[in-house]
Amino acid sequence: MDLIPNTPRTTLRRIPQNAVYERSAIDAILDEGLICHVGFVLDNKPVVIPTSFARAKDHLYIHGSAASRMLLTLGSGVDVCVTVTLLDGIVFARSAFNHSMNYRSVVIFGTASVVDDAGEKLEALRLFAEHIVPGRWQELRAPKPLELKATLVLRLPIEEASAKVRTGPPEDDPDDMNAPVWAGVMPLALRKGELIEDSNGIQVPDYLRDDPRF
Amino acid sequence: MDLIPNTPRTTLRRIPQNAVYERSAIDAILDEGLICHVGFVLDNKPVVIPTSFARAKDHLYIHGSAASRMLLTLGSGVDVCVTVTLLDGIVFARSAFNHSMNYRSVVIFGTASVVDDAGEKLEALRLFAEHIVPGRWQELRAPKPLELKATLVLRLPIEEASAKVRTGPPEDDPDDMNAPVWAGVMPLALRKGELIEDSNGIQVPDYLRDDPRF
Repeated sequence: MDLIPNTPRTTLRRIPQNAVYERSAIDAILDEGLICHVGFVLDNKPVVIPTSFARAKDHLYIHGSAASRMLLTLGSGVDVCVTVTLLDGIVFARSAFNHSMNYRSVVIFGTASVVDDAGEKLEALRLFAEHIVPGRWQELRAPKPLELKATLVLRLPIEEASAKVRTGPPEDDPDDMNAPVWAGVMPLALRKGELIEDSNGIQVPDYLRDDPRF
Repeated sequence: MDLIPNTPRTTLRRIPQNAVYERSAIDAILDEGLICHVGFVLDNKPVVIPTSFARAKDHLYIHGSAASRMLLTLGSGVDVCVTVTLLDGIVFARSAFNHSMNYRSVVIFGTASVVDDAGEKLEALRLFAEHIVPGRWQELRAPKPLELKATLVLRLPIEEASAKVRTGPPEDDPDDMNAPVWAGVMPLALRKGELIEDSNGIQVPDYLRDDPRF
């Protein structure tokens, strides 16, 4: 089992039995998430911004406009915290105190760096498209030089990271087990609605029609 | 229209047409979200943690264990950034460059304070339960003194805040409009699965069976 070495800030102190340090489990959460929340410090104050991302082996990539304040700040090598959270359900306990959520989350600490290499940058753009939906990239035209120039890609190593996972039923106090209140879990998941076509008569590709994720 | 006064850090510079400063729109996003991402600075480095929350008029409440490192840090009055993001869909454009997400997000900056007043604390706990699902609180027993003691509730004013919203179809370059690739939007939304009962034979309450949100 490939474990990530703990550091003080990736060692979960609250409910440590929910902590997960296996790289495979961390990667699975990252690969399922569509957005991450990027935290950084600006003028000594925290800023948290949602954005899309992709993973390549031991790195997380984020990207955006080369004019983005967030990306320019991060590209300068400041500390960053990237968090990906998947909400899996609401846990209805017999007391307000024991209500909870089922979720899987990953927190990565580190410093990001700008991807300058043209080959790695193009590969990162491919990963973004394939992260959105596998199969997409091969249908799209190649990025234009101006698009590449307008896009900043940052790389964050998945080194100092941990996951936290809660699953299963409510954990109630013994005293509450006979309370006359419904208890259990309402599973939640992202589901897709009817596709809204913008193109004219182009057939919906299999990778969208049969997308097994949603 | 009740607008929140802009500050430098709530003024969106990237794609400013997606910015929203109406309090009603901000409140609607907050009220629909089930989790927020809380950002703060610890040892000069950013930390971003997901947690549940609730809103009361002009305040956001978060809560958790009185032993939580995050809550103790925040309760000491440090700067905090709370972000709530609702993912509404994937935007498939005709080029990789113009792919996007439809989403609604709120970012709140400020400092949190500990809710010491017993009445306000109890009201906040009611709001947490009612935020999870309206109707829940009245079925639950009152919190016990020990539970109240073990729970830390923090209050963050919704003063320095902004929302960002993207809706609608892809925005493609004119050159790409005849590209032979499907374009459009895949709407995404949190949906509930089959309820998993933990209690014995207690009827599913109407507020769960008919929950219109999922």
